[in-house]
Amino acid sequence: MKALVFNKELKLVENYEKPVPKPGEALVRVTLAGICNTDYEITKGYMGYVGILGHEAVGIVEDVNINGHSEANKQEILRSAQNDTKAEESPNCANNSYKHPLIGKRVVPEISYGCKDPNCEWCAKKNYRHCPNRHTLGIWRKDGVFAQYFTMPVEVLFEVPDNVPDTQAVFVEPLAAALEINEQLHIKPMDKVVVLGDGKLGLITALALNAQNINVTLVGKHKNKLDIAKAQGVKTALLSDFKTEKIYDVVVEATGSVNGFETSLALTKPRGTLVLKSTVATGKELNLAPIVIDEITVLGSRCGQFPPALRMLESGKVDFSPLISGIYSMDNAQKAFEKNKEKDTLKVLLKM
Amino acid sequence: MKALVFNKELKLVENYEKPVPKPGEALVRVTLAGICNTDYEITKGYMGYVGILGHEAVGIVEDVNINGHSEANKQEILRSAQNDTKAEESPNCANNSYKHPLIGKRVVPEISYGCKDPNCEWCAKKNYRHCPNRHTLGIWRKDGVFAQYFTMPVEVLFEVPDNVPDTQAVFVEPLAAALEINEQLHIKPMDKVVVLGDGKLGLITALALNAQNINVTLVGKHKNKLDIAKAQGVKTALLSDFKTEKIYDVVVEATGSVNGFETSLALTKPRGTLVLKSTVATGKELNLAPIVIDEITVLGSRCGQFPPALRMLESGKVDFSPLISGIYSMDNAQKAFEKNKEKDTLKVLLKM
Repeated sequence: MKALVFNKELKLVENYEKPVPKPGEALVRVTLAGICNTDYEITKGYMGYVGILGHEAVGIVEDVNINGHSEANKQEILRSAQNDTKAEESPNCANNSYKHPLIGKRVVPEISYGCKDPNCEWCAKKNYRHCPNRHTLGIWRKDGVFAQYFTMPVEVLFEVPDNVPDTQAVFVEPLAAALEINEQLHIKPMDKVVVLGDGKLGLITALALNAQNINVTLVGKHKNKLDIAKAQGVKTALLSDFKTEKIYDVVVEATGSVNGFETSLALTKPRGTLVLKSTVATGKELNLAPIVIDEITVLGSRCGQFPPALRMLESGKVDFSPLISGIYSMDNAQKAFEKNKEKDTLKVLLKM
Repeated sequence: MKALVFNKELKLVENYEKPVPKPGEALVRVTLAGICNTDYEITKGYMGYVGILGHEAVGIVEDVNINGHSEANKQEILRSAQNDTKAEESPNCANNSYKHPLIGKRVVPEISYGCKDPNCEWCAKKNYRHCPNRHTLGIWRKDGVFAQYFTMPVEVLFEVPDNVPDTQAVFVEPLAAALEINEQLHIKPMDKVVVLGDGKLGLITALALNAQNINVTLVGKHKNKLDIAKAQGVKTALLSDFKTEKIYDVVVEATGSVNGFETSLALTKPRGTLVLKSTVATGKELNLAPIVIDEITVLGSRCGQFPPALRMLESGKVDFSPLISGIYSMDNAQKAFEKNKEKDTLKVLLKM
């Protein structure tokens, strides 16, 4: 199969071996994938990752390997299959292949799967992304989605509602990351919220918060990008016009720069919360004293769960299509990466 | 009066003008004061402060200026005075001096007072230390306590229980700062807590948490200091013997060094809380990515309210006397500051 592989350099491999789902895994045929800045960071050495890149995708489940499951699970699958009027063939587990209810379904994968050890508190809570023995698509010990196929355990695949096109569904991962803020933090109806940074992350976060009736202002340097949020009802302000006052209950740092971190601190009111979304080194000396003096909470926030993100996409409360800067075929994947680097680019997609 | 003044250099002034309490303020005769590292930082330029140093003190109220109060307050004071069998003189507000119930009482001052503007949300909550127009003893726009007298508004003076000697009461401010952690954060009974750093701050914090039946371990580099906490039932460990694992729900950074911050991050479990108590610049590049990846909460924590600290001192659950490294007279105040700089010194006190 075709796959975009990083190993010291980024290379389109034409005859990469098609993955075989392990017990409990599904084989997914990718239809659309999204390039994330993390992918670009990996090509600069982040995480020391080698393999197929990519962790944002939509695809169709073509196969599920149900062997290796506990007998109880098998019986449950058998029962579910027997109740399914479409399942005409009798299940044949010896085959390692079986018409699992997910087969043929359009799905999106969460980016990590866990160890599933019965003693793992993270897996027990379905917080696979914090499991210390996790595997993460295209980032850590697991081939990614910039390929014709990928495999993932069925418990981290989520069916996409019919009314959500691939071009919206492909945003589910960054949208889930935006909604993770609500999982971690109680934003109250009277709270004043600022999202700093009008890149992909900032735009998606501001749109997601606004869709929840939260009093949010998106602050950035680019009128054209701010206008995307403004068109969907988000209050926006150019950084140069925005008064730096310590009056915001919640400030989301989405610039990815140390200057952004310092500006965010200067906007967070005493005892307020600075949500840190960017995984960057400071690159310079950083004075942490304001955090202590104003008793700021700096809340690291990463990926999120998919069901609330899919619910928001299904509701039509957000529209991410204005963020799409280009759709490239796999044969032009290198060009897509070049496009991703350009100023003013937001989301670049890869069509399989 | 004698006063220890910082103005480019530290100087004992013999004939500093004795302060006159403004309306609403008390005049306090200092009996014992404590040197804090912040005082030392100020002598190196921190806050650009010029004036009498010091913010940790015990003293006796000698006078209260009740003029300038609202009529309602005056009536309340009158009523309270009339109910007080000791108050034999009739109140004479025209004097600007009146036998207020606090007169003659042994008190400790919170370090800040606020603007008391009716619209100030911080003053309304008695969180004077976050009022944007606050004045802070010996740190910001207010002469401190390293003198024979200081003045402070009566609402930030707290009576010391009779069974608490001056040598314990003088620790009320750092103890309140330690208990501020409990004000900000719900530490649960099953939580594993580490306090990193066995200086004054770390010792006081570990003793205060342990006194609340919290599962705390104090980790530091100095056996002699750790033993002070150990003798009062705190679990302790030398840093060199302590396994660096991301398994602690709460880690209190009390080393004041950027290395301590990094070690704290390496001990905080995913989604755990790193309580930042040290107001230091990093002095080197700092990678914030682990905060995001593990969704750590970095909680800045500063000063606290006095009533719970006084309650703990009154209960006898903590004993800070082993932390006293020396008691100096005001005439030897410079020597006290020299002693404060020495390795192995914990708390140095100034006796008036």
